Amino acid sequence: MKPHELTLAAAANEIRERRLSPVELVDSVLDRIGQVDPRVRAYVTVAAEQARSAARTTEREAVRGVFRGPLHGVPAGLKDLIDVADMPTTASSRVRAGHRATTDSTVAARLRAAGAVLVGKTHTHEFAYGLTTPQTGNAWDNGRVAGGSSGGSAVAVAAGAATFALGTDTGGSIRVPAALNGVVGLKPTYGLVPRHGVTSLSWSLDHVGPLTRTVEDAALVLAALAGHDPRDPASLVTPAVDHRPEQEPDLTGVRVGVPGNYYFDHVDPEVAAAVHQAVAELEALGTRLIEVDIPMTRYLQATQWGLMVPEATAYHERTLRTVPELYQADVRILLEAGELMSAGDYLRAQRARTLMRDAWARLLEEVDMIVAPAVPMTAVPAGQETVTWPDGTVESVSDPYVRLSAPANITGLPALSVPVGHDPAGMPIGMQLIGRPLGERTLLRVGHAYERTQPARALAQAA
Amino acid sequence: MKPHELTLAAAANEIRERRLSPVELVDSVLDRIGQVDPRVRAYVTVAAEQARSAARTTEREAVRGVFRGPLHGVPAGLKDLIDVADMPTTASSRVRAGHRATTDSTVAARLRAAGAVLVGKTHTHEFAYGLTTPQTGNAWDNGRVAGGSSGGSAVAVAAGAATFALGTDTGGSIRVPAALNGVVGLKPTYGLVPRHGVTSLSWSLDHVGPLTRTVEDAALVLAALAGHDPRDPASLVTPAVDHRPEQEPDLTGVRVGVPGNYYFDHVDPEVAAAVHQAVAELEALGTRLIEVDIPMTRYLQATQWGLMVPEATAYHERTLRTVPELYQADVRILLEAGELMSAGDYLRAQRARTLMRDAWARLLEEVDMIVAPAVPMTAVPAGQETVTWPDGTVESVSDPYVRLSAPANITGLPALSVPVGHDPAGMPIGMQLIGRPLGERTLLRVGHAYERTQPARALAQAA
Repeated sequence: MKPHELTLAAAANEIRERRLSPVELVDSVLDRIGQVDPRVRAYVTVAAEQARSAARTTEREAVRGVFRGPLHGVPAGLKDLIDVADMPTTASSRVRAGHRATTDSTVAARLRAAGAVLVGKTHTHEFAYGLTTPQTGNAWDNGRVAGGSSGGSAVAVAAGAATFALGTDTGGSIRVPAALNGVVGLKPTYGLVPRHGVTSLSWSLDHVGPLTRTVEDAALVLAALAGHDPRDPASLVTPAVDHRPEQEPDLTGVRVGVPGNYYFDHVDPEVAAAVHQAVAELEALGTRLIEVDIPMTRYLQATQWGLMVPEATAYHERTLRTVPELYQADVRILLEAGELMSAGDYLRAQRARTLMRDAWARLLEEVDMIVAPAVPMTAVPAGQETVTWPDGTVESVSDPYVRLSAPANITGLPALSVPVGHDPAGMPIGMQLIGRPLGERTLLRVGHAYERTQPARALAQAA
Repeated sequence: MKPHELTLAAAANEIRERRLSPVELVDSVLDRIGQVDPRVRAYVTVAAEQARSAARTTEREAVRGVFRGPLHGVPAGLKDLIDVADMPTTASSRVRAGHRATTDSTVAARLRAAGAVLVGKTHTHEFAYGLTTPQTGNAWDNGRVAGGSSGGSAVAVAAGAATFALGTDTGGSIRVPAALNGVVGLKPTYGLVPRHGVTSLSWSLDHVGPLTRTVEDAALVLAALAGHDPRDPASLVTPAVDHRPEQEPDLTGVRVGVPGNYYFDHVDPEVAAAVHQAVAELEALGTRLIEVDIPMTRYLQATQWGLMVPEATAYHERTLRTVPELYQADVRILLEAGELMSAGDYLRAQRARTLMRDAWARLLEEVDMIVAPAVPMTAVPAGQETVTWPDGTVESVSDPYVRLSAPANITGLPALSVPVGHDPAGMPIGMQLIGRPLGERTLLRVGHAYERTQPARALAQAA
């Protein structure tokens, strides 16, 4: 097995045991980038020299017996909304031409402090405002969409071009590309991971989180990211938690809510079947399945868009006036639509959110988590604009991709996407676990136990 | 001294010592209402029989030695936005014709539990959306405005028609009428007093609080009102605090911020002089005066209105469509204006509020409180629509009344209005003390110490 193929946990183990040097690992990942990135275009910027230099530093520390933790010497890709000092944060947009970040975002600084090696910045759907990331090809079939908006991060992790990556999630932007590329994606509880230094799409819905090859890896990255930072006004003051799941987790008595409505409506039968099979696996592991009713579903889409659209427009107010022509057409149209929204519509969305949070809080008294598909369908061919369901319903492609993710953004609840197989075309399918506020540990424990029942996943060949 | 002339603390003392029966006190207040209310029209509803019955109950308890605390047997008026079971909550509006509350609001229930006798509901500017309360005359000159929107409550307390009263404050609606009628008004910290069962004007700015004849009385009422109620989503979980000031408070070392900008701009010279004289008194009491700069003042008005207008419209959405003709013209125009506001404007106001809260928090690290006029001018003649300042600036009457109150609504900081004398026409002047979040005790201590240096105030004659 080549170093770039290792999971984070495995690489950490090799490094700690001095069987693998951070320099070898980074070189292997950089080689892999050279090999696959011309096809998948996951990266905006590859900082090869800086990465090698950081790897040498961690290597020197390792020689002295200094080991900063499981991220020590491990190469990471960061979605290009996340500031890294002395690098541009392009947001994959012409609007950001000439940009250069002067300081690290909180999460970049925390990764560095944990010893991670930042290898580069990955593509996002422009300013995170979309679910396809058109610059980037899916890691399993680059004629299909990567998903978005953290498409570059998901593809890099799936293809071995980063051992782990960071993404952001406002309406599914970590979970959707994770599911479409067969990797793990975690949107943490709102406020758990600080967003200082991260370009905003919609501040009341934005989250930063990891994309990894395993659930255990997600836990390791989360531990390095979580914790209060007063520079993010929404940042929570929370006690430090060891999110790492036990190697032999016991799921006896965990109550898993299986939605009787919403989450399996307008879902591809192959996706539904794969998720149901995974749910059966969870039951075999000792969890108790309880059918639940998802509340207020008819208000979900209006609430998600009602919050996101005006907040996004507010963020882009100035450049939308000065350089509108620099935005891609799809993003500019959404931003301009935001100028037409009334305060009343935004208020209705804020009030609906409050009611939804309360309703979900009551639901999560009955069960410990909800299980659902992460996305209703696998990756569509690039350029496909709509999806038609058997009952004749037509949706634009981004709508189904947002549909099952939005509830966790609106409510701020943590949500984990875990791969649960492939469709007949070989495209990955994701299962979503949604938990209580700050209930990441439970999600990771259940996701990890499920994962252990499955054969180890191979890297995508980025063909 | 007749019973209705007693302060709350004095009445409580008489009742506890069995020198005054609650029945005598309530009868005295009801007689006074009969005498003055035809002229000042402070009350929408006087619940004489219920009040007498409640007084008899507390009297029987007193005979048995049961004394529920300082509010036991004390008559109170409640602004007619506050639900009391089996009474209409008219909001002084034709829109509420036929209304009847089925249950007590949290504050009404807490007053009853503390033994207070609810004598009736007092006039508000329609739905609290204005600063004059046109139905009601000022307690000192009923050809002048009562101030608003808690005009009825302030006039009732000033004229002896209630021993204390409750009001609500969204942009000054407790402090403005308190100042204009020469009584004490306290807008507590946002979230300290639950608003469940209180008609909303603008939920992110609304507060409930007491109007009383002395600062000590305000402390006694606050103690009965404060504390968590999950039915108000903004309600804070706070430890119980004894807000009652010491009888001989020592103010040595208290740092009082005196604004060098904003709070003394476009302020009537007689108001400014009275407040400066009171500030000199505070210095003589041992406080340290520190000149401070009020931050972000040019954004205050836009922020206050940018938050209030769309939230008010959202609350009235349905009736504004079905029965617009039932609103008074001034209120209907404001509500309709709210339909035209953009989400972007509302967002800008929300963001400005966040920045202002932070800026005020920094300011209140340097000083323990800010001292300022409560209102820039005393009560204007009823019907006067504008105010012209010596530099030629013209404001509509409500603008100056809101101007000095709004900062404490936007920031949620506690603010106390204390009488500091009268202008040559005999109209009362108010001083405002603005403190740290949950800093009510410090405000009340300083206000009380100041008050002790002044001769006891007489009741307004409601002529």
